[in-house]
Amino acid sequence: MTPEEKLVSLGIELPEVPKPLGSYVPFLKTGNLLYVSGMLPLKGGMIEKTGRVGETVTPEEAALAAKTAAINGIAVLKAAVGSLGRVRRCVKISGFVASAEDFTEQPKVVNGASDFLFEIFGERGRHTRVAVGANVLPLNAPVEISFIFEVEE
Amino acid sequence: MTPEEKLVSLGIELPEVPKPLGSYVPFLKTGNLLYVSGMLPLKGGMIEKTGRVGETVTPEEAALAAKTAAINGIAVLKAAVGSLGRVRRCVKISGFVASAEDFTEQPKVVNGASDFLFEIFGERGRHTRVAVGANVLPLNAPVEISFIFEVEE
Amino acid sequence: MTPEEKLVSLGIELPEVPKPLGSYVPFLKTGNLLYVSGMLPLKGGMIEKTGRVGETVTPEEAALAAKTAAINGIAVLKAAVGSLGRVRRCVKISGFVASAEDFTEQPKVVNGASDFLFEIFGERGRHTRVAVGANVLPLNAPVEISFIFEVEE
Repeated sequence: MTPEEKLVSLGIELPEVPKPLGSYVPFLKTGNLLYVSGMLPLKGGMIEKTGRVGETVTPEEAALAAKTAAINGIAVLKAAVGSLGRVRRCVKISGFVASAEDFTEQPKVVNGASDFLFEIFGERGRHTRVAVGANVLPLNAPVEISFIFEVEE
Repeated sequence: MTPEEKLVSLGIELPEVPKPLGSYVPFLKTGNLLYVSGMLPLKGGMIEKTGRVGETVTPEEAALAAKTAAINGIAVLKAAVGSLGRVRRCVKISGFVASAEDFTEQPKVVNGASDFLFEIFGERGRHTRVAVGANVLPLNAPVEISFIFEVEE
Repeated sequence: MTPEEKLVSLGIELPEVPKPLGSYVPFLKTGNLLYVSGMLPLKGGMIEKTGRVGETVTPEEAALAAKTAAINGIAVLKAAVGSLGRVRRCVKISGFVASAEDFTEQPKVVNGASDFLFEIFGERGRHTRVAVGANVLPLNAPVEISFIFEVEE
């Protein structure tokens, strides 16, 4: 299955590319690296659950939010490359998790994005990663995730 | 106008390259990517307003601090490439904003840097971006910003 | 001395590559850039001192933890390239420091990693850097550090 077919089989429709929250662009290609800006778990312009994991957001809800951020990242990626078949691999993701001070399972939250990338792209979806806590994120989102992909030139 | 002429027209004089606060270097070129270390809003060795946005620092002051950090970043960039005409584009900036727990407008703060890069470099200044909160930053700075530029080889 | 000989002379034995805490990989090479995932100060699967610098962890202990994270990063690097002589340089490290709200010396903490890279690789170990605070990190670690190296193709 192509990544697009995989998305369809999972019943996932890629949203429109989220509008940047400032004077930047959603993606930029340099050589065969494609940088994707930090994505929030926006769905129809809204964030379902806001706040910090361990307070108003459970780890499970946050992992779903990480998946939503990854879906937004893939929407940007597709807008950039046309066909997802042109994606050679995901190089790196950086996951920031708005965290209560005693919440230390950021990796489980960011797995929501990592697992999804693997699901859609298979081995080409395996990436390096940083997962850290933040005391607060834009729009009071529970997660923000940025991406670097390697694509066909 | 060249980026240097644009700086002059805005009355901005690039400072000396800030001295690293540790055992690292201000910039490093690999291929045609130039990495610039995290810049603080230092002006004459001082940070005008310290602390967290939403507490001791207003969003407007923090956006100015982000601009100051970007000026320092451009000073490093110029030291690296000689002429700013050799800069093909800004690829990515990472903006960390020291934030009160209820401050969620990090994008507006980091726009202080993003808008300035666009002002100086035009379309070549448009970049991808991450903007996140941090509970505290080095020297109690309100912002820290790192950069990746694409430059002529 | 080769980097390996330098490690021996310092009595440092590289540990096994730490098992990822999620669905990602410890390293990935794209072009001649090698990305290493965020490393924690794990030693034998344990973190000696947990918590935030300025609270349960002193800056000196945190700098040692940063060195331990760098040792783990070099273990991953060696697993990736075979001989450390194939490392052209360290391009960038990102250091996240779990910090009490009034702790502002993140650069001194991350120097524990930066100084060590310089010790092992000499001039090729000098890198660009970001050092920021975080309110909490995975496994309640005091530091997390990710790396980008330039290696022989």
